Amino acid sequence: MKTQVAIIGAGPSGLLLGQLLHKAGISNVVLERQNPSYVLGRIRAGVLEQGMVDLLRKAGVGERMDAEGLVHEGFEIVSGGKRVHINLKELTGGQSVMVYGQTEVTRDLMKARSEANLPSYYEVSDVALNDLDSDSPWVAFEQGGISHRLDCDYVAGCDGFHGVSRQAIPSTVLKIFEREYSFGWLGVLADTPPVNEELVYAAHPRGFALCSLRSPTRTRYYVQVDASEKVEDWSDERFWEELKARLPQDLAESLVTGPSIEKSIAPLRSFVAEPMQHGRLFLVGDAAHIVPPTGAKGLNLAASDVSTLFDILVEVYQQGRTDLISQYSPICLRRVWKAERFSWWMTSMLHNFPDQDAFSQRIRETELDYFANSEAGKRCIAENYVGLPYEKVS
Amino acid sequence: MKTQVAIIGAGPSGLLLGQLLHKAGISNVVLERQNPSYVLGRIRAGVLEQGMVDLLRKAGVGERMDAEGLVHEGFEIVSGGKRVHINLKELTGGQSVMVYGQTEVTRDLMKARSEANLPSYYEVSDVALNDLDSDSPWVAFEQGGISHRLDCDYVAGCDGFHGVSRQAIPSTVLKIFEREYSFGWLGVLADTPPVNEELVYAAHPRGFALCSLRSPTRTRYYVQVDASEKVEDWSDERFWEELKARLPQDLAESLVTGPSIEKSIAPLRSFVAEPMQHGRLFLVGDAAHIVPPTGAKGLNLAASDVSTLFDILVEVYQQGRTDLISQYSPICLRRVWKAERFSWWMTSMLHNFPDQDAFSQRIRETELDYFANSEAGKRCIAENYVGLPYEKVS
Repeated sequence: MKTQVAIIGAGPSGLLLGQLLHKAGISNVVLERQNPSYVLGRIRAGVLEQGMVDLLRKAGVGERMDAEGLVHEGFEIVSGGKRVHINLKELTGGQSVMVYGQTEVTRDLMKARSEANLPSYYEVSDVALNDLDSDSPWVAFEQGGISHRLDCDYVAGCDGFHGVSRQAIPSTVLKIFEREYSFGWLGVLADTPPVNEELVYAAHPRGFALCSLRSPTRTRYYVQVDASEKVEDWSDERFWEELKARLPQDLAESLVTGPSIEKSIAPLRSFVAEPMQHGRLFLVGDAAHIVPPTGAKGLNLAASDVSTLFDILVEVYQQGRTDLISQYSPICLRRVWKAERFSWWMTSMLHNFPDQDAFSQRIRETELDYFANSEAGKRCIAENYVGLPYEKVS
Repeated sequence: MKTQVAIIGAGPSGLLLGQLLHKAGISNVVLERQNPSYVLGRIRAGVLEQGMVDLLRKAGVGERMDAEGLVHEGFEIVSGGKRVHINLKELTGGQSVMVYGQTEVTRDLMKARSEANLPSYYEVSDVALNDLDSDSPWVAFEQGGISHRLDCDYVAGCDGFHGVSRQAIPSTVLKIFEREYSFGWLGVLADTPPVNEELVYAAHPRGFALCSLRSPTRTRYYVQVDASEKVEDWSDERFWEELKARLPQDLAESLVTGPSIEKSIAPLRSFVAEPMQHGRLFLVGDAAHIVPPTGAKGLNLAASDVSTLFDILVEVYQQGRTDLISQYSPICLRRVWKAERFSWWMTSMLHNFPDQDAFSQRIRETELDYFANSEAGKRCIAENYVGLPYEKVS
């Protein structure tokens, strides 16, 4: 079997890259370890930057998003018990974000790929990337007990943090940057009306809370919990009580509760692997970097990697610009580090760090107080939240 | 001996408070442990915020400052080897800072106090603050072997970090917030023309460097050194070499060196004591809080404390507003913490932290890169650098 680009992973980045390449006439094959329902069952992010929205439209998969997604022109931060509005549109000169679940993005991309009859192999195992340093790399994998060989020009590693792609880069070459946090997010998905039209990021002495949503009838709420907490110990009732305790009174009083559809605890982590390209392998999204979810940068960062890789591959195939291949990693990493900084910073400002000394705690509270109440500070938050511009490939 | 306000310490805050009170018809006595030449020999800060400049003028001691001080409408940050201009005037809507040495401020204040024949006791010892909780506090002290008793209404503790005033507040009442840094600043004062008209704050892999000045013919340069370094180990030649190594090439090449007039190593520390008022004692400036010098906030923060205390004492004496006394600490601390945050943040961004893990180092570099290259980020730096507004007493 032969293709131009082998894409490892059928999450939103792999599928989006495949769709863009297909539209540009570049053949590609997607390999995925899980089955489609498993992929669609993963509840993830739900806030898309303008850059990602544009990219989805460019890939021809923006129709349902544009019909059902919610344009948000702002969000709220609760600092010292007070609700502060971050007016994204005003602060950034017209930009906004789109509330549309990662699950829905993936569903739209799967549908488009299926309609275009593009080759996808689900439930594959033993994926191995070979001869990445040569002109003719190939991917070995098994499906249903049968061994396959996929020859290709390039490999796009879109297989997430635990995938095989990053492991294919020699450890002597990779430099790892990492931060673990002592807490996680306990998240609940529920078919209840959102407590607020816009997202609410609340700092509170009991810990951080986030009121997010997926649609006008589906909410996604989170509370910061210690990393050692077990989801079994959190009844719906306990969750709603804890969430209310962390919200300003007016929000707590108007919160509508209901049975959870999904409930899980996700650890928080910052992670970057450098470089993001090795020979003919490109790492995309979570395969190369993880951000804590505060600020909703994970999926969006994967999208900007996809955009950069797509632009480079188009130049390579159409103009023979193989010199651009070595530009992939530095271009991506400049934006990755900015988003890592923002995610780390939002996390640092909004969460409780029980081990912090008294000085650090006050600095953290003051940081939030300053940025939430200074016009320049709010502008910093806003321009990062809507997403810093994509860098042009040239 | 009796006065309305006993002022402990004849540094710039004590003298400025005394001058303001005098002009408002409120009697005061200043007590100082050292002699005047010792006080004037201490080389300290040299960048005054607009608020402090206005306060000095209000105290009637702005004449020489206005004639000899240098108005700076901007400064530079070196990030990733590139010089970035922070245009204070443009970014803050017209504000600037005044370069005028703390020594000169103190000299002007001493002269004014002496001309007004206001009582000052230098070289006093065994200062003890008594009955601060009562309506009639008094200060005991010795001078030249003679014991004195100074009765007063209020005590202003302007005697710095090592002074007796803060110690007079019971430790059960005081809450201390503190951060020590593993490095200090090696500073050199020299009669050489400044390498740059404006200040240059340079982040460099070898460590932070600052090119400051006191006048068109007198420079003040600093390099970050490990806290364990001894000033004896730093010849002038070694200092100039290290400074040049940390500056961009164009600045290093045009740097004029010369013999040092003063050379010293100052440790860096963040410190806040809360509350800043206890009974009839008010802590002012360094007696209550220390900032690392990055961002030049120390003296300016003392000036905003002086302004708040002066405003309150005027209301107390003229309107009987003793209810305002308990407002001193919360009003001051709001601004103190903002300045502590800015000083800590500038220090964190610009210095090397040898013990930092790889992730933290990259975050630090990215923080500098982001703030120095984003319009909103530069605005945050600028509005803090010129000084956040003084809070009104009401």
